[in-house]
Amino acid sequence: MKRRIALLAGAGLSLATASMAHAQSTVQTGKERVVIQVSTPEQRLWNQAFNYLANLREVYGDGNVELEIVALGLGIGALQLESTQGPRVAEALQAGVHVSACEISMRRQKLKREDMLPSIGFVPAGLGQIIKRQREGWAYISG
Amino acid sequence: MKRRIALLAGAGLSLATASMAHAQSTVQTGKERVVIQVSTPEQRLWNQAFNYLANLREVYGDGNVELEIVALGLGIGALQLESTQGPRVAEALQAGVHVSACEISMRRQKLKREDMLPSIGFVPAGLGQIIKRQREGWAYISG
Amino acid sequence: MKRRIALLAGAGLSLATASMAHAQSTVQTGKERVVIQVSTPEQRLWNQAFNYLANLREVYGDGNVELEIVALGLGIGALQLESTQGPRVAEALQAGVHVSACEISMRRQKLKREDMLPSIGFVPAGLGQIIKRQREGWAYISG
Repeated sequence: MKRRIALLAGAGLSLATASMAHAQSTVQTGKERVVIQVSTPEQRLWNQAFNYLANLREVYGDGNVELEIVALGLGIGALQLESTQGPRVAEALQAGVHVSACEISMRRQKLKREDMLPSIGFVPAGLGQIIKRQREGWAYISG
Repeated sequence: MKRRIALLAGAGLSLATASMAHAQSTVQTGKERVVIQVSTPEQRLWNQAFNYLANLREVYGDGNVELEIVALGLGIGALQLESTQGPRVAEALQAGVHVSACEISMRRQKLKREDMLPSIGFVPAGLGQIIKRQREGWAYISG
Repeated sequence: MKRRIALLAGAGLSLATASMAHAQSTVQTGKERVVIQVSTPEQRLWNQAFNYLANLREVYGDGNVELEIVALGLGIGALQLESTQGPRVAEALQAGVHVSACEISMRRQKLKREDMLPSIGFVPAGLGQIIKRQREGWAYISG
């Protein structure tokens, strides 16, 4: 038994770099948590990502799932004020989805917060956010 | 020691949302398990995904690896009856690879089971399947 | 308590297929570890991948992060001698990033080690490397 616990120490702790408290709350609330990365400007892939969100809400049921979509790199433009994705972003936000823009990517493309769609969230680094979510036990999907 | 176990409770449980039994059997059988997501219609990326399957079978050896390829979104068409990927799908199925079509994506594109390649599997939701596999401890590869 | 440990056995062990020692050292060194897959020949996506590396080094700080970029499939050409990505590969190597070329992909494209950029690393199978990293507790990003 001791050996088993020692083994666990390695496996478990390697995944425990980030917030342990959040991981525990994931289990306590029983919610499925999924982070989706979108790093492309292609509209059809953005449409697909929003379909993914709709599918996941349907599959798990609102209230049983926590979703975050992180836009970064070449994908950051889709969250600009004039983006054709505006209505779907608004719909996602309305449904409680976290929509997060990478501020490093924004700086690279000279975008300010006021250039972006209203009510979205900002994260200092898109990849950092995705890595943090993985550490917290969220499933990861590349959009 | 108590504190260590408490830490483990957070890390371990956050990954334990899905089938615990399957995760245990993964360890018991000693097989590597890998799920590959394909959500593109691009033939060269489908060819690449089938190369991935061949590579993984070569690297681990048949019998030491369990593989699943999940087609969803824009990728669902590659599993249609008339798909040029038909021979490679047949070869993968023959080798014991799970080939799974997302039924949500099929409905979006008005595809019925009889419109699809023979002997493939169907999952209610492609993303749900990938998330389930991640929870069960499968490695995840975006194709 | 016994039941809690039993639960952990399933969750923890399912993620413990690979090197337990490395997973433990991840925790001991306190470094964030991230593996990035690049399987595309598109230059803009390679540029993006190198931006990712720069961002991660900035976010975590050199010395606090261990990074590996694995080129495979259609992405292998970007590590050829004459690649326009040469300077950024050299910069990444200089910064201590592991740059790994998949030898299966090289064989498929008749590339020898002497055809590739100097100082890069070689792995028998790119996917095998990525899967191994996931087992060791590295975060995974699809580039």
